[in-house]
Amino acid sequence: MAKELKDLTKRSEDYSKWYNELVVKADLAEQSAVRGCMVIKPYGYAIWEKMQQTLDKMFKETGVQNAYFPLLIPKSFLCREAEHVEGFAKECAVVTHYRLKNDPNGNGVVVDPDARLEEELIVRPTSETIIWGTYKNWIHSYRDLPVLCNQWANVMRWEMRTRMFLRTAEFLWQEGHCAHATAEESEARTVQMINLYADFAEKYMAMPVIKGVKSANERFAGALNTYTIEAMMQDGKALQSGTSHNLGQNFAKAFDVTFVNKDNKPEYVWANSWGVSTRLMGALIMTHSDDNGLVLPPHLAPIQVVIIPIYKNSEQLAEISAKVEPIINELRALGISVKYDDSENKRPGFKFADYELKGVPVRLAIGARDIENGTVEVMRRDTLEKHVAPLDGIANYVAKLLEEIQDNIFQKALKHRESMTRTVDTYEEFKKEIEKGGFILAHWDGTTETEEKIKDETKATIRCIPLDGDETPGVCMVTGKPSARRVIFARNY
Amino acid sequence: MAKELKDLTKRSEDYSKWYNELVVKADLAEQSAVRGCMVIKPYGYAIWEKMQQTLDKMFKETGVQNAYFPLLIPKSFLCREAEHVEGFAKECAVVTHYRLKNDPNGNGVVVDPDARLEEELIVRPTSETIIWGTYKNWIHSYRDLPVLCNQWANVMRWEMRTRMFLRTAEFLWQEGHCAHATAEESEARTVQMINLYADFAEKYMAMPVIKGVKSANERFAGALNTYTIEAMMQDGKALQSGTSHNLGQNFAKAFDVTFVNKDNKPEYVWANSWGVSTRLMGALIMTHSDDNGLVLPPHLAPIQVVIIPIYKNSEQLAEISAKVEPIINELRALGISVKYDDSENKRPGFKFADYELKGVPVRLAIGARDIENGTVEVMRRDTLEKHVAPLDGIANYVAKLLEEIQDNIFQKALKHRESMTRTVDTYEEFKKEIEKGGFILAHWDGTTETEEKIKDETKATIRCIPLDGDETPGVCMVTGKPSARRVIFARNY
Ligand SMILES: [Zn+2]
Ligand SMILES: [Zn+2]
Repeated sequence: MAKELKDLTKRSEDYSKWYNELVVKADLAEQSAVRGCMVIKPYGYAIWEKMQQTLDKMFKETGVQNAYFPLLIPKSFLCREAEHVEGFAKECAVVTHYRLKNDPNGNGVVVDPDARLEEELIVRPTSETIIWGTYKNWIHSYRDLPVLCNQWANVMRWEMRTRMFLRTAEFLWQEGHCAHATAEESEARTVQMINLYADFAEKYMAMPVIKGVKSANERFAGALNTYTIEAMMQDGKALQSGTSHNLGQNFAKAFDVTFVNKDNKPEYVWANSWGVSTRLMGALIMTHSDDNGLVLPPHLAPIQVVIIPIYKNSEQLAEISAKVEPIINELRALGISVKYDDSENKRPGFKFADYELKGVPVRLAIGARDIENGTVEVMRRDTLEKHVAPLDGIANYVAKLLEEIQDNIFQKALKHRESMTRTVDTYEEFKKEIEKGGFILAHWDGTTETEEKIKDETKATIRCIPLDGDETPGVCMVTGKPSARRVIFARNY
Repeated sequence: MAKELKDLTKRSEDYSKWYNELVVKADLAEQSAVRGCMVIKPYGYAIWEKMQQTLDKMFKETGVQNAYFPLLIPKSFLCREAEHVEGFAKECAVVTHYRLKNDPNGNGVVVDPDARLEEELIVRPTSETIIWGTYKNWIHSYRDLPVLCNQWANVMRWEMRTRMFLRTAEFLWQEGHCAHATAEESEARTVQMINLYADFAEKYMAMPVIKGVKSANERFAGALNTYTIEAMMQDGKALQSGTSHNLGQNFAKAFDVTFVNKDNKPEYVWANSWGVSTRLMGALIMTHSDDNGLVLPPHLAPIQVVIIPIYKNSEQLAEISAKVEPIINELRALGISVKYDDSENKRPGFKFADYELKGVPVRLAIGARDIENGTVEVMRRDTLEKHVAPLDGIANYVAKLLEEIQDNIFQKALKHRESMTRTVDTYEEFKKEIEKGGFILAHWDGTTETEEKIKDETKATIRCIPLDGDETPGVCMVTGKPSARRVIFARNY
């Protein structure tokens, strides 16, 4: 059942509360009985499915194939790559036993102490280790390369503070794991995938992103280099939306994966990995939505158009339905997903509010008067503007409107980001500006010490060293030491 | 790299060994480093993806929506439904801790004893409990019903003896969980889904199945009634390929899920659940494949047609490729997936054997002579027959041939099943016949005692009480007591 619209907290009152409420009220997800784990409800899952299908197609167009690797990873695997275990292995779900038995005291079931595993198994927090353990069997010669695998999977990281979609103990994601014969080829794939993610974010999510490189401190555990796409939410905080890691030969060395190259010499394989997760759902919600509820980009909306008949009796409804049917067919022929909501147990006003809450991009309302006049009321969700349009040619009109909405919300998000991005030269100014949120372009001396100091004092992190934009050198705002170029600072999710 | 064809064990020598080898040699899956868990390789996963996409579409056409529920289930949830815990909860992966730490002795990482969970969590063996715990929040009134959810997920059951695809500790599946206002509606959905599975098995997998009801003994833990589809493998053993369970009000009562009905009275909700898994991959392999490798039904083959050029030099290859290009386009326009394998590092004979091993339904080979004559050599994988066809109109010819192959392998499997299905009246005869494999139609008195006795003495189980076919009553072959109708006995996977 749809929740009451009037209960949604306003963004200006409490942005965080607004987000948490919206996730639940729009039927996207809810907390489960398991700490930190969410249930993704059908409407939320339908959006995730559209993301999945789109990305999956984009991956396959670059030659990637899907596969599936085990959920559980032997504890010893995590220790093979030293940096990886340092950065990763600690907060995770540990399987120690493989059997329950009836409680001898009659209280349900208890863990059978006789069924203790010799080696504990870890619910995968990411799969580099198990996958590189497998690639050892697959790769022998340069002819076996590249291996371009992706898996769609659930992973677990035992986060202490969780928020639906943004940070949950279990989440859904895809993880790509490529193996190459040369460092150059692996680096090229790493960059190709961050570009693919940026394209997806901008063209489908209508979410502008900045592509960049992570500082050493924020790198993936075991990577030589981590590329990222960073988006800005409406409250000015950054959200890391996808990453692609150049892993060098670290995992190949850890799992002894070598190949015989064209010169007949053994060499370690070059690796990269890349992923996006259900976190993108959080990014999508926070980029576009408003005090009336979700605003979904047409390219990812499960329902792109809802048609609501306004009628007083079943005769009127029949008349409207007859008029609407060919329009629905025309819209579907254009590849547009349409819902005709003629349910009788809800009033039109309730339906209007409910589809607004759910972010359906276009609403058409048709009453008896409209039939007489050959018109329809069109409401676009992004601006909430209503106007009357002729029924004649309405399908093509809606098709164009959907593209206009897709473009408009992207431009709106871009303008917002631009208006909240500033260049700052002194640390004093920085401390003042960071309180207002947004991205701050500032010079930094490139050391982890300075980065940590800034983080401790201001809660701002280096989001990335941008791939594009101003590359003028300068001096660090904190230490005065030389800086190769400005980097982006922000507080983040 | 493709494995040597000559190494594949013959079915007549050792059917079980043939299967295990074929799974690995055809690049479908392999054992992982985790006991009982497999890696599904890209080629195997591509077949599973085709199954998934087809089923997902079929589900959605009946109004089902996808959702996602947590991987981990609180131990106490499993105990709520008494029969369910009896039948299910014992052999499973138990999460007891949520953190690792550096070994104080410097040997990698150890489980942090301070991070013990208050309540253990179980990796889902199936999700009825967590889902009905969630449905309690979703269902209040008859207006909230039906709820028709499905999830595509991984599940774990700690099996002692495992075989790839057929029985693995972790496997992939879909589990549908529906909630209804009436017993009739729930029963109708339960039957609808077993019919859907049978349609899928027959139309896509080309695998004939018998629809039936499980005996009380073989029922899902917590169900009133379990429907099944049973297929016969080439060795005469049965393979349960999909089940649909009418759960009555058992889970609603266990999790206190009630709704206010149209008469404004509270009532427990009616439930059903239904699922198929990567086990279907095993069924697919064992139904059609032969001593040369996989035989895939065209409707599920990732590559439906492979085209192999036979050339002596690059000039010939260029000429052949130019001729082949429009044919590829024509085939793709017909929705047929084509691979043109002009790779130079493998000889045609090797390619032929490799695509045979991988079960590609149709192979086209084109040489210089063919170009002159306007012909092409066509090989169909199901019969291994080769013949020469005119290049002119080849795309439509292949499209028809694919349908012919789809039909032919179904008919072949059906004939095999019919030839191995016998009617038996005495227990003596039964004991003799069961040694030959196949399905045996016999009378049974309907008691678990007799069923168990037969199982102990002959290793045969009741596969199902068929929904269709001969319904003449008779007397039990073991006890002479009345029998309502013949049931199907077989040894099974
Ligand atoms: Zn578009
Ligand atoms: Zn067909």
